[in-house]
Amino acid sequence: MITLYSEGHHQHHGQAELKDGQLVPCFEKPARADMILAQLREAHLGAIKTPEEVYPEVQSHWQQTLAKVHSQDYIDFLANAWREWSAAGHQHDMLPLAWPPRRTTSIRIPDSLDGRLGYYSFDAGAPINAGTWPAITDTVQVAIAAAELLHRQQSHVFALTRPPGHHAGRDYMGGYCYFNNAAVAAQHLLDRGAQRIALLDVDFHHGNGTQDIFYARDDVLFQSIHGDPRACYPGFTGYADETGEGPGKGFNQNYPLLPGSDWSEWSQALALSIIKINHYAADALVLSLGVDTFEGDPISHFKLKSEDYIKMGQRIAEANIPVVVIMEGGYAVEEIGLNTRNLLIGLMTPPQES
Amino acid sequence: MITLYSEGHHQHHGQAELKDGQLVPCFEKPARADMILAQLREAHLGAIKTPEEVYPEVQSHWQQTLAKVHSQDYIDFLANAWREWSAAGHQHDMLPLAWPPRRTTSIRIPDSLDGRLGYYSFDAGAPINAGTWPAITDTVQVAIAAAELLHRQQSHVFALTRPPGHHAGRDYMGGYCYFNNAAVAAQHLLDRGAQRIALLDVDFHHGNGTQDIFYARDDVLFQSIHGDPRACYPGFTGYADETGEGPGKGFNQNYPLLPGSDWSEWSQALALSIIKINHYAADALVLSLGVDTFEGDPISHFKLKSEDYIKMGQRIAEANIPVVVIMEGGYAVEEIGLNTRNLLIGLMTPPQES
Repeated sequence: MITLYSEGHHQHHGQAELKDGQLVPCFEKPARADMILAQLREAHLGAIKTPEEVYPEVQSHWQQTLAKVHSQDYIDFLANAWREWSAAGHQHDMLPLAWPPRRTTSIRIPDSLDGRLGYYSFDAGAPINAGTWPAITDTVQVAIAAAELLHRQQSHVFALTRPPGHHAGRDYMGGYCYFNNAAVAAQHLLDRGAQRIALLDVDFHHGNGTQDIFYARDDVLFQSIHGDPRACYPGFTGYADETGEGPGKGFNQNYPLLPGSDWSEWSQALALSIIKINHYAADALVLSLGVDTFEGDPISHFKLKSEDYIKMGQRIAEANIPVVVIMEGGYAVEEIGLNTRNLLIGLMTPPQES
Repeated sequence: MITLYSEGHHQHHGQAELKDGQLVPCFEKPARADMILAQLREAHLGAIKTPEEVYPEVQSHWQQTLAKVHSQDYIDFLANAWREWSAAGHQHDMLPLAWPPRRTTSIRIPDSLDGRLGYYSFDAGAPINAGTWPAITDTVQVAIAAAELLHRQQSHVFALTRPPGHHAGRDYMGGYCYFNNAAVAAQHLLDRGAQRIALLDVDFHHGNGTQDIFYARDDVLFQSIHGDPRACYPGFTGYADETGEGPGKGFNQNYPLLPGSDWSEWSQALALSIIKINHYAADALVLSLGVDTFEGDPISHFKLKSEDYIKMGQRIAEANIPVVVIMEGGYAVEEIGLNTRNLLIGLMTPPQES
């Protein structure tokens, strides 16, 4: 399996996130991708290529794809945020400080940078610094090139994207996420002629951003298996009764599971979601892969073991659809490489005849 | 003029608030009230009394008044929050970490403490510690006793409330505020037979919480003069076109002013608001007094001078309605006492015959 990767992500290294009343070093850091890369190389899983190697046109195309899943004002905000912040004399990472209160009748975009930071976010968990913009635009290109490769070869591809993207909505960041790499990959496949894309999010945390982007669309079937929002971050979204709206009604399914769930519970939700995906007859599957479902993850609450990721990959392979794997979360840095490697190995197992 | 005061506020001393990407020591601190008290004593402005001295029944009455402006679930959350937090092993102040994203279709109350912290707040600017509950319930009683005294004597009263309250909505905290002392005072006056209460908020920051509480009610006319939400915290609310809803339509007026506004601009908004209050024929006026409109305030952007507060008090006195002054913001600690004293001196100036 070919892996798409770019060194650019190293430029984004958030210093701190607000967690439990304190600013703590970000769990999301460059070493995560480095550990995965090391495991891929050790396992000889396949070639590791840059976006330009497989899709030279990506540099002139990524912005128009991005603008189909994020609003232009949000993209412009991210493009200019650090310049504005540093012009105000700050050298440390940007974080928002206030959000629209519930029941605000008409939420308008403030002019001030503080106001826009709150408008374009839902937490103080996506710090912005000088390297954020180059890193997130690089990663978007990784996702697009991976989708392009799937389109051409109709075989599984791994996009080693970082920072992750699934919490990023149409016009908001949060939870380490700025641009929604998985949504961008899905959009590129549609732009290449696919009619129906399934997007399966197996990260521990609800893919609230992906849900937001596709909530009223019927060309992307979104499925998310995650910690129950009553108990788990980001909260507020990810309930089972959120099923889409308008043309998207029925094209959004959430499978919230209680903290402590292990493979026996988790795999039942996976089986249900794969039935849905097969019924949808998707042309391709975008897999938002978080391995923070691992029992040793420092900020998550499922109990999957390293060997479970092989089974997860196998079950997904049995859907018999080409898969582009987009890297999302996973914060047990020592094991993130092994668990990701296991998923990819499982995915490469030929589907069994039924 | 009699001042209502209780020492209980000293128990609440927030350690840190999230501001410009960092956790910084709270600008809102016990010394603020101490400085005001020292100035009142120096100026011999009148007796300083505890809530129990003027209204012994306050201890058995405050909870039912509070429950008319805040939801019971929010009150219960604040009552138990520190116990839950410390039971989880934390010793530092509580702060939320994630808020409902925009476009969340149905916002439900999570079970987890982190989730509830985000649900019941709009920023990470209202830290909770062991002393918060005793302090905020003490301060609510200060506000109620002051309203009771106004009811009995029909003369101006000063409630030296701390922490402030005007950012606290029906079921959310933020911006140093937990319970809305001004709203509680207004409610007590209504409960004592008043038909129409005017609530004028002259704090630099929009009184978004007070607006939220009374937005659909016609028994409280809310007027707020504040920094334009496009440029100033808390942002998102305080626009001129927010005029109330349902029975409250027309009973909410915002006067957003640009940063840098001085007395000449500010006093024009005051004149307009007093015309509204007179036209409403209010039985009493609750004044949410922030002196963070002062030119030296470290977190605000108006340019009022200390002597302007005398004029402000005089203009308000000319409305010829008994006023209960509720202390809100003001973070230039050295001058907060003088500016508050000046306002009260101006208020005590007999209205001129017109």
